[in-house]
Amino acid sequence: MSDQPRRMFLSAFTISSPGHQSMGMWKLPGDKSHEYKSLKYWTDLAKRLDRGGFDTLFVADVLGIYDVYQDSPDPALKNAAQVPILDPVPAIAAMASVTENLGFGVTVALTYEQPYSFARRMSTLDHLTDGRIAWNIVTSYLDSAARNMNLDGQIPHDERYDIADEFMDVCYQLWERSWDDDAVVRDAEAGMYTDPSKVRGIEHKGKYFTVPGMALCEPSPQRTPVLFQAGASSRGQEFAAKHAEMIFLISGDTTTLRRSVDKIRAQAEEVGRGREDVRVLAGVTVVVAETDAEAQALYKQYKEAGSWDGGLVLFGGWSGVDLGALPSYEPLDHADSNSIRSAADMFGGAGKSWTAEQLGKYIAVGGATPVIVGSPQTVADELERWMDEGDIDGFQFASVHMPYTYESITELVVPELRRRGRVPEERTGGTLREKLGFKSPLLQGHPAEVARTS
Amino acid sequence: MSDQPRRMFLSAFTISSPGHQSMGMWKLPGDKSHEYKSLKYWTDLAKRLDRGGFDTLFVADVLGIYDVYQDSPDPALKNAAQVPILDPVPAIAAMASVTENLGFGVTVALTYEQPYSFARRMSTLDHLTDGRIAWNIVTSYLDSAARNMNLDGQIPHDERYDIADEFMDVCYQLWERSWDDDAVVRDAEAGMYTDPSKVRGIEHKGKYFTVPGMALCEPSPQRTPVLFQAGASSRGQEFAAKHAEMIFLISGDTTTLRRSVDKIRAQAEEVGRGREDVRVLAGVTVVVAETDAEAQALYKQYKEAGSWDGGLVLFGGWSGVDLGALPSYEPLDHADSNSIRSAADMFGGAGKSWTAEQLGKYIAVGGATPVIVGSPQTVADELERWMDEGDIDGFQFASVHMPYTYESITELVVPELRRRGRVPEERTGGTLREKLGFKSPLLQGHPAEVARTS
Repeated sequence: MSDQPRRMFLSAFTISSPGHQSMGMWKLPGDKSHEYKSLKYWTDLAKRLDRGGFDTLFVADVLGIYDVYQDSPDPALKNAAQVPILDPVPAIAAMASVTENLGFGVTVALTYEQPYSFARRMSTLDHLTDGRIAWNIVTSYLDSAARNMNLDGQIPHDERYDIADEFMDVCYQLWERSWDDDAVVRDAEAGMYTDPSKVRGIEHKGKYFTVPGMALCEPSPQRTPVLFQAGASSRGQEFAAKHAEMIFLISGDTTTLRRSVDKIRAQAEEVGRGREDVRVLAGVTVVVAETDAEAQALYKQYKEAGSWDGGLVLFGGWSGVDLGALPSYEPLDHADSNSIRSAADMFGGAGKSWTAEQLGKYIAVGGATPVIVGSPQTVADELERWMDEGDIDGFQFASVHMPYTYESITELVVPELRRRGRVPEERTGGTLREKLGFKSPLLQGHPAEVARTS
Repeated sequence: MSDQPRRMFLSAFTISSPGHQSMGMWKLPGDKSHEYKSLKYWTDLAKRLDRGGFDTLFVADVLGIYDVYQDSPDPALKNAAQVPILDPVPAIAAMASVTENLGFGVTVALTYEQPYSFARRMSTLDHLTDGRIAWNIVTSYLDSAARNMNLDGQIPHDERYDIADEFMDVCYQLWERSWDDDAVVRDAEAGMYTDPSKVRGIEHKGKYFTVPGMALCEPSPQRTPVLFQAGASSRGQEFAAKHAEMIFLISGDTTTLRRSVDKIRAQAEEVGRGREDVRVLAGVTVVVAETDAEAQALYKQYKEAGSWDGGLVLFGGWSGVDLGALPSYEPLDHADSNSIRSAADMFGGAGKSWTAEQLGKYIAVGGATPVIVGSPQTVADELERWMDEGDIDGFQFASVHMPYTYESITELVVPELRRRGRVPEERTGGTLREKLGFKSPLLQGHPAEVARTS
C-alpha cells in the first residue's frame, strides 16, 4: 500500500420491500424491514448513512414477481422475496430533504418507459436533490413484469440492449443538448423568462423512439444523472463500458472479480474513455460486531433464520432455472442440465457440490455476494484485500438485517476505515458526480458529452 | 344560512413551473415562483397550507408544450407558460414528511401510463403519506405531448375516455381485489410473510390492457386514492360522474356553475351513487389584502404584470385555437370562425366583445377562473355566495403570486372563514377520504367498491 491509500466508496444497497437479497431475515428479533412502507424508515436510514460516511444509497427494484421457482408466485409471497414492493422513486425527495451529502441511486427499468417522460422524472429528482442523483440502468429481467405491461413476453436480450442504447441517446439529447446553460434569463424588462433561441427540439427519429420536441425541464445540476449499471452478460458489459460511470459487480472471489474489472477498464478505454473513468463497486454482505466471536454468533443466527426455498426463489428469478422439481439429495453439479450446472456455478460459486437445498441456504444470506464476517478490524482487513486484489473503488453493502446492517457498518466499520485513511473525515461539496471524483458536468469521451457538443 | 353553515373545503392549485394559470406574475417584486426547483419551496408551501387550514394541495401537470399560439413553442418559453416544468410526483413525499393533515393531489395523465406500474406508484404514495393521496385523473390534451411519447398524434377524444374507463377498471382490480386486508401475516413460526391464499392475480384481458398478475403492493391505507377530475366535455362529465369523488369546475358566474353542478349530481345519482358522494370545488383566483383598497391596488399591479400573449398561449393550449394571426383590433365575437367564437366564450366568459389582446390580458390574471378581489370580509362574502348559489363544497385557489397568494389566504381569509363556521378549527384524523367526509375505504355504488366485492 502507498502512503495515500486508495479512497474507498461506500454504498448501501437495499430495496423497498421486506426482503431483498437475503431471505427470511424479517424473522430476526428487532428486524424493522416490514416498516419499509413508512417515510420515517427511509428518512432515518438516509440520515444514518449520510452522517455515517456513506457516499450513496441504492434502492433496487423489480416490476414483477419471482415466479420461476415451482412455477408459482406463492413461494415468493411466503418468503417476502422482493414482494410486496413499492416504487423506489417517491421516497427519494423525502430522504434528500434530511441529508446533506448522500447520493441516491434509483433503479428504473427503461424497458417500460418512454424516454421523454423518464428524462423529465430524472431531471426533477436531480433538481430537487441539488444534483445527488444516480440512475441504476436496468433492462428488466423478469417475464412476469413483461406480461403485465402489455407485452407478450420479454423482448429478446440483445434487442433489449439495442433499445437501451437508443433510449440512452434520446435521454442524452434531452439532458445535454436541448437547453443551453443560460437559457433561463428571467428578464422582467423584456418580459422574457426563457430565451427561446437557447432551447431546441432534439428532432430524434430512430428505430424505436420518435422525439421531436425539447426537454420540458431547464438544465439540472448534473444534467445527466450519474449512470450506474450492473451488466453481467457480455452485451451488458459492452453497454456498461460505453455508458456507466459506476459499475456494480458480484463475484465470489477476488480472482474472478479482477478478471471482470480488467475487462471493464479495457473496454472503457477501447470506446475512448479512461480506465479510471469507471468506479467499480463489488457487492458484499457484511456481518460485523465488536468481536470476531460475536460476529460469528450473529452470522449463525442469520443462517438459522435463512429460508432455503426463499433462496431458490431468488435463484429462479435471476437464472430462469426452476430447481423446484429436483430431488433434494441430488448434488447440482451432477445434474443433466447444462443450464442448471452453469446457473449454480454463477450464483452459488463455482466448484461447489451441493444440493438445491444447500444452494438455497447459501443464497439466503447475502444472495450471491461474498459474506464477510468479523470484528471491525477483520472486516476492514478483508475489504482492503478485496479492493487491492480486485482493483475496485468500493463496495455495495447489501442489506440483511434492518436497520442493524447499516447501524453496525456506520458505527463499527467506517471509523476503522477512516483510521486507515480509506474514507475521508469530511465530504467535499458539489454534485454527486463531483463527489465521486469525476469532472462535472461530463466525462471526456462519454456519449453524453458527445451528444452535448454535437 | 342555517345554524350549521356548510363546510367549505379549501384546496390550493398550483404547478411545478414558474407559470401556471396566470401569466407574467414572475415579474412581480418578491415573487418566488422561480424557486419551484427547490425542495424547500415545496416543503415551505406544504407546511403553510397544512397549518393554515387547507385540506389539499393539487399540483397540475402537462407533459408537453403549449405550442398552438403562433404555431410555435417560443411564446410559451418566453412567458413561462407551464414550461419549464418538473414532474409533480417526486416532491410529494418530502411535503408529506413535514405535514400532518394536508392531502396531496397529484396529476397524472393516464394516456401515457401502463396501469400495472401506475397502480404501484399510487399505492406507494398512499403508503408513504399514510393515506393522504388524491389522483387528478387527466387524459392528456396537448398534441405536443403525444408527438414525443411515440404516438403520431392525439388519440381521438372519445376513445381516450374508453381507454380511461378500462384503465380505471384495471387499477380498481389491483387496488381493491388483489390483496385481502389480512394477507400480510408475518408469521415467523410458519416462515410466512404473506399468505399466498389471500393474494390473487386479477386476470384482466380487455381491449386495451392485459394484466394477468397480482398487485405488487400490499393494501395501502386508502387502497384507491381519492379520485379527482376536471372533465369539461360531456364525455368527460359522464366519466367524472362515474369515477370522481372530487370534481373541479371553472365557471365565470354562479348560474353557469349551478347548472353544471346540478348535472353532475344528477349523473352521479343515475349511475347509482349519491348526489352528495361528489365534492365539487370551483376554481377561483383570490387577491386579498387588509382592506378593499389595498387589494384593488394589488390587483392593478397583477394586471400590469399580466402578459397578454402569455394569456393567448394558454388559450391556444386549452382550446386548440391559434389567435396569433388575428388583427389586434378585431373583436372576437365578430370572427368568422365558429370555433374562435365559442372558445372565446368558454375561456373568456360569454357575451364579451373583446379583441385577442384584451382576451389575453383577461386570461393573464387567473386564467379562466373568476377573480375575487377585496378585504378578508369581502372575499369571504363572495366565497359564501358562490358556495350557496353554486351548491358547491369548496374551492380550488389558483396560484398567482408565490408565495403571497397562499400566505394571504391562510393569514387573512381562513381566520374569517373560521369565524363564520365554514372551516373547522381542528382537523379530524384518518385518511384523506375520511377527512373529506366520505366513508372509508369505499363509497357504496362506486365502481371501485364493485370491483372489490365482485
